[in-house]
Amino acid sequence: MKNHSAVILLLSKSLELEGQKPLYRQICDVLREAILSRRLRAGTNLPSTRSLARELSVSRNTVMSAFDQLIAEGYLKGAQGNGTFVADELPDEILRFRFKKVLDNRQAHAKAKLSKRGSEITQIPFRVERDSDNTRAFSIGFADITEFPLEVWKRLLARNIRNMSRSMLGYDGVLGYPPLRAAIAAYLKTSKGIECETSQIIIISGSQQGLDLAARILLEEGDEVVIEDPNLTGKHGGAFATKTKISPIPIDENGLNVSEISRLATNPRAALITPASQFPTGITMSLSRRFELLEWAEANNAWIIEDDYSSEFHYGSRPISPVQAMDLGGRVIYIGTFSKTMFPALRLGYLVVPPNFVDAFRRAIAFTSRQPSFLEQITLSDFISEGFFGRHIRKIRAIYSERRSCLIELIERNLVDFVEIKKSEAGMHLVGELRNELCGRKLVESAAQKGLFLSAISEYCINAKIPDALLFGFTSIIKNEMAPGVAALREILECSN
Amino acid sequence: MKNHSAVILLLSKSLELEGQKPLYRQICDVLREAILSRRLRAGTNLPSTRSLARELSVSRNTVMSAFDQLIAEGYLKGAQGNGTFVADELPDEILRFRFKKVLDNRQAHAKAKLSKRGSEITQIPFRVERDSDNTRAFSIGFADITEFPLEVWKRLLARNIRNMSRSMLGYDGVLGYPPLRAAIAAYLKTSKGIECETSQIIIISGSQQGLDLAARILLEEGDEVVIEDPNLTGKHGGAFATKTKISPIPIDENGLNVSEISRLATNPRAALITPASQFPTGITMSLSRRFELLEWAEANNAWIIEDDYSSEFHYGSRPISPVQAMDLGGRVIYIGTFSKTMFPALRLGYLVVPPNFVDAFRRAIAFTSRQPSFLEQITLSDFISEGFFGRHIRKIRAIYSERRSCLIELIERNLVDFVEIKKSEAGMHLVGELRNELCGRKLVESAAQKGLFLSAISEYCINAKIPDALLFGFTSIIKNEMAPGVAALREILECSN
Repeated sequence: MKNHSAVILLLSKSLELEGQKPLYRQICDVLREAILSRRLRAGTNLPSTRSLARELSVSRNTVMSAFDQLIAEGYLKGAQGNGTFVADELPDEILRFRFKKVLDNRQAHAKAKLSKRGSEITQIPFRVERDSDNTRAFSIGFADITEFPLEVWKRLLARNIRNMSRSMLGYDGVLGYPPLRAAIAAYLKTSKGIECETSQIIIISGSQQGLDLAARILLEEGDEVVIEDPNLTGKHGGAFATKTKISPIPIDENGLNVSEISRLATNPRAALITPASQFPTGITMSLSRRFELLEWAEANNAWIIEDDYSSEFHYGSRPISPVQAMDLGGRVIYIGTFSKTMFPALRLGYLVVPPNFVDAFRRAIAFTSRQPSFLEQITLSDFISEGFFGRHIRKIRAIYSERRSCLIELIERNLVDFVEIKKSEAGMHLVGELRNELCGRKLVESAAQKGLFLSAISEYCINAKIPDALLFGFTSIIKNEMAPGVAALREILECSN
Repeated sequence: MKNHSAVILLLSKSLELEGQKPLYRQICDVLREAILSRRLRAGTNLPSTRSLARELSVSRNTVMSAFDQLIAEGYLKGAQGNGTFVADELPDEILRFRFKKVLDNRQAHAKAKLSKRGSEITQIPFRVERDSDNTRAFSIGFADITEFPLEVWKRLLARNIRNMSRSMLGYDGVLGYPPLRAAIAAYLKTSKGIECETSQIIIISGSQQGLDLAARILLEEGDEVVIEDPNLTGKHGGAFATKTKISPIPIDENGLNVSEISRLATNPRAALITPASQFPTGITMSLSRRFELLEWAEANNAWIIEDDYSSEFHYGSRPISPVQAMDLGGRVIYIGTFSKTMFPALRLGYLVVPPNFVDAFRRAIAFTSRQPSFLEQITLSDFISEGFFGRHIRKIRAIYSERRSCLIELIERNLVDFVEIKKSEAGMHLVGELRNELCGRKLVESAAQKGLFLSAISEYCINAKIPDALLFGFTSIIKNEMAPGVAALREILECSN
């Protein structure tokens, strides 16, 4: 009987007869909390609905509704003739029970829907790179991680771990580790002709984050962005995620056809370009096009987002400086990545941002992700400033150059009836234009069935009408894979003809 | 004269007399590119405007305009009587010259403006945490990194570096390192009563990224989000960056006042809550409020974003399970961080996401940042599964508990005339309600002048009218700092009275 008066006291103390919430709900909530917080123990006998209704001055129906609800939820048990008891399960077990129900509760889950922009994200073509595919012919866009000086990297990491102090455990450094930023600024100056202050360098976790930040800081939702057509579809993600409107502009042998922008776009606020080696055509944007694009940006108060994922990989003459290096008006956001020059799992890249916008990027980063891990930043800083980075770039450039020549020779010797290599001087793959109106997509399918990894330029076209071509990656393909790959492809091509 | 014919050939080959671009611009662009690509060397003598005009069948004015433009840009030099020459500067020097101009070219830069949402980001209050401030009385919200078992961490890191293989250098693992995800799932089950599948755990780089991702996937731009009032202003960043509309809802002694949502918000799509220990009031959301909020979310097809930054730090009874653990309808996105339990520079946190939304999060992460560094993920996985994490939590919880008691005693002994400690059982700071209508903000200012780090609850209020209070951090403050801090504060309080 002590229990009965405790329950009555608890309820009479808590009920708001004039409250907004229905009384039966109030009784439910008070009892449920008392059970879960173990103020009412398992097995406790509750007062009868009749006496409780009288004590609380509410209708008996109200109390019965509350009890029924709690019995349905598993908190109470009603034993015919013996009154009502707190269920034997402990709170955790009830929670677990609730959870188990969730897993089958498809109906409730189905009601919960993504937002429009959320479900649009799920519509973006998304190719999961499987690392195991990278060494297969003719996978594209992967660094050859077997050539990475892993032992040097491990030694530098180990040294930095030994030197790791508690002062490195805090929040400092939203824009990145300052010596790394300085090392990148120095590298950009000597290697790419970009002269910028260390303060303009912002460390990010890769190109995608750079695209995403630039779009969110410089553009409104719904703003029009000019992109190259054909284009790396996956790269759209950044723009799509920030809900910009994409206007594809054709490319010709000089890169993005700037004079077509006014015809094909309405009011573009930015152009997203890959001038060093356009993906997937491999075309290097000519100098006058670069100036033309800069003039367009200044005249139209628009931005140039320069995604330079590959300017380290050039095999002919000295490459043209990045558009950033020619920018007079603070119009260019330059995105660099270490995924291609080092290795993808490093998750480090950088932005070069006009000086007056650094603060906006700092805040956006603080509000969305903060800086990447310091240990890798410090180690990369050492790797660059102690000369390992420059040496590694020179080494892989030579290796890629040799593989490229070897692949050109193999293709020209074996596939000359079917494809014509378009010689670009930069990038990570070759473009082989298909003769006799062969269909790239069909070949890609047939190749996949034979375990060959192919891609066709038509897969990357949005509106562009250009001759179809196959893409031949050569950077991460083991050399021994090339000849069998070409031979297998020849069989496929012969069958298609 | 050989030069002359080369120039004429170059131009006549390139000019499109019927083209869209004005002829003088075409001439400019061709010559500029020829100079920059060194096809026209420094000092080269150009044909006269008259002969060039004749050869190209254009007006002399057209050629003169082009030459004037290039002279103005520094590519050509006109020597009276001697004709026109390519300037002596090398292309790099011209680029450098262009760049130097940029730095002074405030006018051009001033034209380039952030987007509306970009400039809104710059308006968000943003407190830069300086790590050096963390040990000062009464800094709040920082883990005590001096207690972190750095040697263990370094040993595990070093071991993982030794074992690091090339298979760990690739792109795999957008959702995080699978064993870390499994270790977190196991930890959540035993420590927080959350039962979820490993597949629901997503590794992120900290709470802010979790907030940002959730807002972008589950909400539209402009959607209304309910937040607790008072609130950690900095946390708004995530929501602001994704342009949601914030509706502050008051809290009472049971946490967010759910019944006020319908009165104060129009059509909220989500509620952002800190139920374990509301920041900054320290109030733990009661069980019935948690259920009430879940019911609200289900009835209104809305989301609950549960930011659990501190449920590890409880000093009294066993804490209430997270709202996630009570969620039947797949309505809760749970955000956990290791910044408070490990150290901030680790940049690791996690989400628990309803199973049907994992794919959308995977894509959003792939399109915006990809996974954090693997080395730290692997090492954290070891740290958790080898028992170091649990041990560290127990250790710092005991340390924090002792510091908390010590600080309560100091304040109650010395400041009883001015503040009244509101005893919450969780969190990383104490709340001392001010007596005699003392003004928190004024005290914060006076304290800052004396080198004391104080914050007042009124600094975090949006519309809330609650008694002002001072916040006393105790987690990262060195114990020896406490008594002098309290003494200094007593002086300040005596002067203000």
